[in-house]
Amino acid sequence: MTTTKILKPRWLLTMAPGSEVLDRHALVIEGERIAAVLPWAQAEARYPSAERVELGSHVLIPGLINGHTHSAMSLLRGVADDLALMDWLNNHIWPLEKKWVDEDWTYQGSLLSAAEALRGGVTYLNDMYFFPTAMARAAVDAGIRAGVSINVIDFPTGYASGPDDYIAKGLAAYEQFKGEKLLDWTSAPHAPYTVSDETFIKLRQLSEQHGLQMHCHIHETLDEVEGSVKQHGMRPLERLNKLGLLNEKMMAVHMVHLNEAEIEMLAKQKVHLVHNPNSNLKLASGVQPLKALEAAGINTILGTDGAASNNRQDMFGEIRAAALLAKGVSGDPLTVSARTALEMATLRAARAMGRGDELGSLEVGKLADCVAVSLDALECRPVYNPAAQLVYVAGREHVSDVWVGGRQVLKGRALTTIDQGALIDRCEAIVDRMKTER
Amino acid sequence: MTTTKILKPRWLLTMAPGSEVLDRHALVIEGERIAAVLPWAQAEARYPSAERVELGSHVLIPGLINGHTHSAMSLLRGVADDLALMDWLNNHIWPLEKKWVDEDWTYQGSLLSAAEALRGGVTYLNDMYFFPTAMARAAVDAGIRAGVSINVIDFPTGYASGPDDYIAKGLAAYEQFKGEKLLDWTSAPHAPYTVSDETFIKLRQLSEQHGLQMHCHIHETLDEVEGSVKQHGMRPLERLNKLGLLNEKMMAVHMVHLNEAEIEMLAKQKVHLVHNPNSNLKLASGVQPLKALEAAGINTILGTDGAASNNRQDMFGEIRAAALLAKGVSGDPLTVSARTALEMATLRAARAMGRGDELGSLEVGKLADCVAVSLDALECRPVYNPAAQLVYVAGREHVSDVWVGGRQVLKGRALTTIDQGALIDRCEAIVDRMKTER
Repeated sequence: MTTTKILKPRWLLTMAPGSEVLDRHALVIEGERIAAVLPWAQAEARYPSAERVELGSHVLIPGLINGHTHSAMSLLRGVADDLALMDWLNNHIWPLEKKWVDEDWTYQGSLLSAAEALRGGVTYLNDMYFFPTAMARAAVDAGIRAGVSINVIDFPTGYASGPDDYIAKGLAAYEQFKGEKLLDWTSAPHAPYTVSDETFIKLRQLSEQHGLQMHCHIHETLDEVEGSVKQHGMRPLERLNKLGLLNEKMMAVHMVHLNEAEIEMLAKQKVHLVHNPNSNLKLASGVQPLKALEAAGINTILGTDGAASNNRQDMFGEIRAAALLAKGVSGDPLTVSARTALEMATLRAARAMGRGDELGSLEVGKLADCVAVSLDALECRPVYNPAAQLVYVAGREHVSDVWVGGRQVLKGRALTTIDQGALIDRCEAIVDRMKTER
Repeated sequence: MTTTKILKPRWLLTMAPGSEVLDRHALVIEGERIAAVLPWAQAEARYPSAERVELGSHVLIPGLINGHTHSAMSLLRGVADDLALMDWLNNHIWPLEKKWVDEDWTYQGSLLSAAEALRGGVTYLNDMYFFPTAMARAAVDAGIRAGVSINVIDFPTGYASGPDDYIAKGLAAYEQFKGEKLLDWTSAPHAPYTVSDETFIKLRQLSEQHGLQMHCHIHETLDEVEGSVKQHGMRPLERLNKLGLLNEKMMAVHMVHLNEAEIEMLAKQKVHLVHNPNSNLKLASGVQPLKALEAAGINTILGTDGAASNNRQDMFGEIRAAALLAKGVSGDPLTVSARTALEMATLRAARAMGRGDELGSLEVGKLADCVAVSLDALECRPVYNPAAQLVYVAGREHVSDVWVGGRQVLKGRALTTIDQGALIDRCEAIVDRMKTER
């Protein structure tokens, strides 16, 4: 029997296009989907036997979508900070990854990130990492949605020996988890400076053949852009465009360094951009020209990046940073309103994942991924405007309850799917080993 | 009888110059001051009858100092967001202040901010607002330290009729609260565009006569700088320098727009700067050139600004933003390390307030203002480096206990000095009235 639930938030922010904040409206969930959005009393009259969830000081919003992360890297959170990028990569991150990353390491780190995500109102992790079966298992075990990557890099790692091996392993994982409702899969070339033309073309074909979105780091640093000009005689975006990769299937991550012609081309070809404001700041990569991207009508969404470069995997923090940073660097306080910033982590992000019809807003027929944020704490008072309060005041610590596909995965800040203590113990054991055998 | 307490944090970050993170060290508090810093076992052996406070998963740090805020404006939190500065001021903030601000409004809003501050690990609020007696009472009632302002603006408000009236009222408040240990007082001209030369000189004399630090908004926006060139034939800093205001007594707030000569002069004359990264972003004022200020050896500290322009009065957020933003805009990932950012909110801030001998670090003989931050939550695991974890991972939500001058004002996240429910009710009543009679 399908259970019916009536969630009764004080404020309901459906994020449906053109919608306003609804006062004392209920979200009715039947099974995994949204059955109705009605005033409290009407919902209770129409569904008299449904379970009622009282959320009298809460805003209910769509589950947040983290558009780019490396989930397993939570095990490297804080291992190396305040370093130059190449020192950080060459002397810390890559050697550690080479020595330690395997299926279990990736599973435990991914589960830790999934737990952190759910406790922070995130119901979808768009991941990029090695050992995709580990990420897939972690997401299913946690009850969180994920975009799992068929990730390819041209050089060998502990995971695979070369491009064809990466692709074969990624495809095998994809076939193994086919039909798993919580998972989407992406064709994910790592970056222009680590992937050859030949491999890019293979991954484009993989995307076309299986109908997968693509996921790639592009134009993160000035060094990357200048290096490409030296090596290929053109900027990375031009090269990818020639290879036929820049279209509505592509989620282009970072995209910090862009000229006007590139912005125009990205808009025209409907490429999705993933902005990682805090990671770009911490690694000193720069600041994405978000105001110009908005003016061009580009679908930019938000991501945290991995915990090694953004130690706090907090989408509330990214939403706030995106809204503030765009204003501060452009000098225009009207750019990227609170509402726009929220859209970048919900409906727009669902569209980028190719899931705009099913996810990203609380509309009848869509999957019931939603998050209750309490504005009861002293820090959140008074409330003039619930949408602005979510962006400029509330934090992930105010998330009380989370549902994914109608299933409650966080209840009063406690995870229902994961034994949190046991998970922390397993992760700390791995880290203790890494510290002593370093 | 003086009570003795032994705080036993897992990690102790004293912030004393040159200090490292101490592992399993205790802070011994006798009365209002720090009596010893010792390994756990030695502290317990030396003070066998002292009360023990177990903080086994915590970092203990000096209380954070908010270098610039308008505490009472918590009642305007979120009243007007995503607006152009002059629209925001002229059509929202100033009319509301004119209509509503009185002694009680200021007291209740200040108390709400004091409560938010303590719950976020802030033990000192450097305030600037009208009705200083209200701020003084709120700070004393909350048990928080405050820099209370003798605030002057050249035009009349509901508080005072003109410069001499502001000064007279401020001085009367100063005399009334003289000897109150929690309070410092500042001579606080509002800003170069709202205060005449004559008034600036009077406030400089007030500072000299009573040994008060000064507190002034300077070079916040490009408009302000350009307006001064038109009106006075010089930039605000040059004008203030001619008036003899730029020295080690001055806390210059914002300081976003600075040229090289100005930076050199500020360093030479030992002016303290107060950086408000999130407020400057939200109002689209710009980004302070923090890397250049650091290179020049200027003592820059951190503040939130008021809740109308920085809705989240969160010093953890400002510390993180300062460290990230300085890297991102300068392109140098080595600038403003986690440790430096913490210093800007502790020891450096105490020096700016003229209280470096008494506050800002956990050293024997200093006042016992300290904050326990739990790193127990899943989001804070694993821990490689406690100082970096405080800045890049932890948030104010992880503050568990706070002491001000040895008195515990926050215990397990509950305020010991304020009836939180009653305070919220009083504030909501004021806001309801503002909403209906708007």
